[in-house]
Amino acid sequence: MISKAEIKRIRALASKKQRHESGLFVVEGEKMVEEALASQFEVEAVYRIGDVTEAEMAQMTMLSSPSPALAVVRIPDSCDADGLASRMTEGHSLCLALDSVRDPGNLGTIIRIADWFGIDAIFASEDTVELYNPKVVQATMGAIFRRKVVYCDLPRTLRQFREAGLPVWGTFLDGADIYKETLSKEGVIVMGSESFGIGAACAAEVTDRLYIPPYPRDASGSESLNVAIATAVTCALFRASAR
Amino acid sequence: MISKAEIKRIRALASKKQRHESGLFVVEGEKMVEEALASQFEVEAVYRIGDVTEAEMAQMTMLSSPSPALAVVRIPDSCDADGLASRMTEGHSLCLALDSVRDPGNLGTIIRIADWFGIDAIFASEDTVELYNPKVVQATMGAIFRRKVVYCDLPRTLRQFREAGLPVWGTFLDGADIYKETLSKEGVIVMGSESFGIGAACAAEVTDRLYIPPYPRDASGSESLNVAIATAVTCALFRASAR
Repeated sequence: MISKAEIKRIRALASKKQRHESGLFVVEGEKMVEEALASQFEVEAVYRIGDVTEAEMAQMTMLSSPSPALAVVRIPDSCDADGLASRMTEGHSLCLALDSVRDPGNLGTIIRIADWFGIDAIFASEDTVELYNPKVVQATMGAIFRRKVVYCDLPRTLRQFREAGLPVWGTFLDGADIYKETLSKEGVIVMGSESFGIGAACAAEVTDRLYIPPYPRDASGSESLNVAIATAVTCALFRASAR
Repeated sequence: MISKAEIKRIRALASKKQRHESGLFVVEGEKMVEEALASQFEVEAVYRIGDVTEAEMAQMTMLSSPSPALAVVRIPDSCDADGLASRMTEGHSLCLALDSVRDPGNLGTIIRIADWFGIDAIFASEDTVELYNPKVVQATMGAIFRRKVVYCDLPRTLRQFREAGLPVWGTFLDGADIYKETLSKEGVIVMGSESFGIGAACAAEVTDRLYIPPYPRDASGSESLNVAIATAVTCALFRASAR
């Protein structure tokens, strides 16, 4: 049993303002709900078809078709970016930094990639798409419960890595061939926005410029790789060289 | 000026049946239209805001918001899969084979990846999502005009590669660490469906089993990479080793 008011309250979490005010977000699908329950996140409520009708689920869902399970989850307190960056530099971790990634599907996919390739933390510029957007959450396939994403003054965070003597990697059209570079097990890899790449303020903090070349090198055709695809290739090459 | 009937005819191309009957498909966006015009594809008509009103464009579009340009393009004759496979094996090409990829965004992204990494042709099982689906077309970002995609009896095509003495690569959970394998400049790389991976009939034709390991190797967490992401990583590693 679920009241009309409760359905309305859940549906309202499609809005960023409502998520912010309530401190809640929604996950959908059996696997996502299981991952939420198994995580350190606080699950406020779980709804399953059977307990609620399919028609009620259809009113609550943010997906194109309702799934058999939906959970309302509490947004954890955001951690301090400076403190996290300090721990990452001291721990010789490999991190990602996202400069103005705007597409929810891209952010979610990048978090899933980070999870696979053991990226310890993700730092995101303040204008990166919001983490608890339903499209981001669903695209993570559960990785959102396992990887830290912190919004911050990104150039400042990159400077912390640089001043700790760690490499700040970035991909640029005039970067060095990533296949030929010696890649490290620590530092931070900066990925730029879908439209403009890495902005000037972040670019100024980059110590090592990389480029994923097309094949053959002089191929005309596609102008770029999607940012999630470029992130995956970059992370895989870092992990390949760290073997 | 555009008639109501013409708008209706274009809008109808959202349906696979209508695309099949008319032999036409739609591309949207200034860049996509330019790529269509610059390609060998036959462009039947181009509509731009100014020539048509924004309201008319909004009636025609298959996107969530209308773009400033839309073109109706003729679907080219499909080429013979056996003949293409013969040319590919003789030419010592590197190809992709897609076994039941169902998500339009994934197929479009894979074609874009294939374009970047110089994959010579893409063979797709008959139950792979249709190439001229608007979501596939848009996700290719123009690569659809540059890369051949052929639907075929996929196990039969893979057998052609194998019988020509070329490697048939596939990714499996029990495959060999892709970072440590010697990868070739020729052959065919099989990617499986989002839900089930590579099916038994195609798996039987695979000569070399690969695996993209998580980091660290024994990491628990994400169960898999998305098929487009896995394709990108695989293609990049093949091209990295071919330098």
